[in-house]
Amino acid sequence: MSLKRGATLVAPAIRSFQHCRCASRTSVQQRWLSASSKTPSEPPRPQEAPAQKNYAYAQVAIGIAVLGALTYNFLRDPIQAEIPVQNAATLAEVDEVTKKRTPISRHSPMRLRMEKLVQEHQNKIVFALEQIDGKKFIKDEWSRKQGGGGISCVLQDGNVFEKAGVNTSIVYGELSRPAIEKMRADHKSFVGADVDKLNFFAAGISLVIHPSNPMAPTVHLNYRYFETSDPRDPVNATGQAKQNWWFGGGADLTPSYLFEDDAKHFHKTLKNFCDKHDKDYYRLYKNWADKYFRIPHRNESRGIGGIFFDDLDANSAPSAKNPQEELFQFCASGLESFLPSYLPIIKKRKDMPFTPQQKEWQQLRRGRYVEFNLCYDRGTSFGLRTPGARVESILMSLPLTARWEYAHAIAGTGVEPIVDEDELDATHQKERELLEVLRTPREWV
Amino acid sequence: MSLKRGATLVAPAIRSFQHCRCASRTSVQQRWLSASSKTPSEPPRPQEAPAQKNYAYAQVAIGIAVLGALTYNFLRDPIQAEIPVQNAATLAEVDEVTKKRTPISRHSPMRLRMEKLVQEHQNKIVFALEQIDGKKFIKDEWSRKQGGGGISCVLQDGNVFEKAGVNTSIVYGELSRPAIEKMRADHKSFVGADVDKLNFFAAGISLVIHPSNPMAPTVHLNYRYFETSDPRDPVNATGQAKQNWWFGGGADLTPSYLFEDDAKHFHKTLKNFCDKHDKDYYRLYKNWADKYFRIPHRNESRGIGGIFFDDLDANSAPSAKNPQEELFQFCASGLESFLPSYLPIIKKRKDMPFTPQQKEWQQLRRGRYVEFNLCYDRGTSFGLRTPGARVESILMSLPLTARWEYAHAIAGTGVEPIVDEDELDATHQKERELLEVLRTPREWV
Repeated sequence: MSLKRGATLVAPAIRSFQHCRCASRTSVQQRWLSASSKTPSEPPRPQEAPAQKNYAYAQVAIGIAVLGALTYNFLRDPIQAEIPVQNAATLAEVDEVTKKRTPISRHSPMRLRMEKLVQEHQNKIVFALEQIDGKKFIKDEWSRKQGGGGISCVLQDGNVFEKAGVNTSIVYGELSRPAIEKMRADHKSFVGADVDKLNFFAAGISLVIHPSNPMAPTVHLNYRYFETSDPRDPVNATGQAKQNWWFGGGADLTPSYLFEDDAKHFHKTLKNFCDKHDKDYYRLYKNWADKYFRIPHRNESRGIGGIFFDDLDANSAPSAKNPQEELFQFCASGLESFLPSYLPIIKKRKDMPFTPQQKEWQQLRRGRYVEFNLCYDRGTSFGLRTPGARVESILMSLPLTARWEYAHAIAGTGVEPIVDEDELDATHQKERELLEVLRTPREWV
Repeated sequence: MSLKRGATLVAPAIRSFQHCRCASRTSVQQRWLSASSKTPSEPPRPQEAPAQKNYAYAQVAIGIAVLGALTYNFLRDPIQAEIPVQNAATLAEVDEVTKKRTPISRHSPMRLRMEKLVQEHQNKIVFALEQIDGKKFIKDEWSRKQGGGGISCVLQDGNVFEKAGVNTSIVYGELSRPAIEKMRADHKSFVGADVDKLNFFAAGISLVIHPSNPMAPTVHLNYRYFETSDPRDPVNATGQAKQNWWFGGGADLTPSYLFEDDAKHFHKTLKNFCDKHDKDYYRLYKNWADKYFRIPHRNESRGIGGIFFDDLDANSAPSAKNPQEELFQFCASGLESFLPSYLPIIKKRKDMPFTPQQKEWQQLRRGRYVEFNLCYDRGTSFGLRTPGARVESILMSLPLTARWEYAHAIAGTGVEPIVDEDELDATHQKERELLEVLRTPREWV
């Protein structure tokens, strides 16, 4: 990989990562320097709006001496509601101290456990994909002026993967009054909503893999955790008090050509891990995915589905003694099942022969992927509308290349077939087979 | 061009047009057959919601004998409010008769004048572009089950144009109560809003041209007219009574490489035609375009702008004796100015030499075009959310091919430059020059 600067446009993204890493380090260093002059009497810095999928990592930079004193105060005095908001430490500040003092265990706050979970799986998945591709991912750590950041691992123009991204991000932020109202409307059990501001935390992992070979399917996975705390109740911030929290996530497969064995294997792996937790989960979340990944204007699904769930809170696992623990373990199982669900498929398909026409069909299907992500994906549209969001990480999900033809004979919308069924040759049948399953989602297990 | 069916996927769109034309004719014929059994006592067929840019053409199929009788009734009795809604002819039915009885002139209803205007210019523009490309457009006439239709002229994989579409569409439809409320909120002078339903009419021309050569800019143009009438006041439908109406439109240029001469010529041509109507128009509508064609998440404009205007009604041309006439003439001038604004540019650029790197840069810029159209263009998102809309005509604006790289060194969002300014070679300077003007719109005349 040439790092010679300013030489060519052919693979400029690769070079930019190098730069990003430097830029990121610099801004983190700068933040540490500037924040060390902060005193406890300063009001908390205003933070960003929540990003449903584009969690940014708040690498909070505050002198440990100052933060230590604050934390000590919280723990000593149980009547935290009396402490003026201005003096309350943010979730981020509390977590920064906790991480430095104790290793993350079952007893740590869920925020830190989720952060550890997604980062461990990011490393594991990236390593496994590198073994398949033979080319290394670029690890792009970034932070933002407003606070927040993440780790984007990207492989572009690989041997097997045209574009693959595995991102984690952690956001500490502050919800505004309208955002709180909205959440209260969506969540009956929402507590602590009668405030003007609410600290929140979000952690997530999001991956999209677009292989080069049109026989190999695109795959997407996302697991995320969201939590709020009342700024007048900083004990909350240590995980002791009742909080608002929920989990979301899932995984889904988007083939350009349908191999029933692949679809069955993918769904079976998902069902197996779901069944370990609740016999209803697979059915419920498979149906949710079929609804969510729909492109209404095409009357097609994005792919052959998988599972999708959102806003799972204490009411979503009523039979569990500890619903939060149960749902965390569910997400952990989901992440654990990813490599077994996808690796056998990519290994089987990555070196299959294909024609230029089949590559072109894949490009058209990629166009539909773009349509779904830009028009309907909630995380993408929310992310793009969030000021200061990291656009490059949100749009990493888009394929390297895509194509749109007017009124395509096979895939055109509202265009009737131009040939009789019996006139179809084998190639066309394959494309039609895919469309059929995209139009009418099927049961695979 | 091979028309052998089911043989290959290489140019399937071309074959599909052949089919579309047949399908369209068939459905029109069918509608004529089924509608001829309709009696005046039947309630009007429910029609679609308004489409801001995706106007569909309602080729209303009703026996002329029946329609003639209805029209006669309207004209004979001035107290039309007494006629039950069920017996009122639709705008479409009245217009169908008028078109058959009299040639379109200055004294015809604006609906018919606008339909004639956009179709005449469609033919003229298509003809001129065919001279440049050497390849013919495919003319795709279509209609819809719900009523409506249009003419899409498309040239794909041409010698000069990678994808070019010139569409006209005419919609006769019915606004629902919520849509009426929304319009009343947007238009202070909205009349006849105290009804549950309101017939509407929309006519428009929309063109997008993506040339192959990265030195040749993409161009977009759109002119449209919208009108409503109270179904309890069918005289309205003949253009006699006070109506709600407005015009919208504009034209803008999207280069991948900036040639200042081209930008100046394009804007100068627009300014010249605007100045003929009102010395303020160019300034106002140039600024409107700069605002409208913004991609906020990229902090870039789609291109170097042009003019854009919407909702121009009687209040928008207060100095004119007949504001509707004045605004119609303004749109006519806009259409007239299109070929002079674009032809000199495409002729100069279409055969310029370019490198593969420059082609790749064009592909990245095409990706941004897709982002704007799918995320922000009001016509596109409204169209895609309109049940029964003709998706292929709406998405014709998307380029044939596009590309997304993660954190591109030059175009990446939130990614700082990786090279010092003085290290830039000439190629990079050209890309940066474009970005600069996209980030900060400039005055060109």
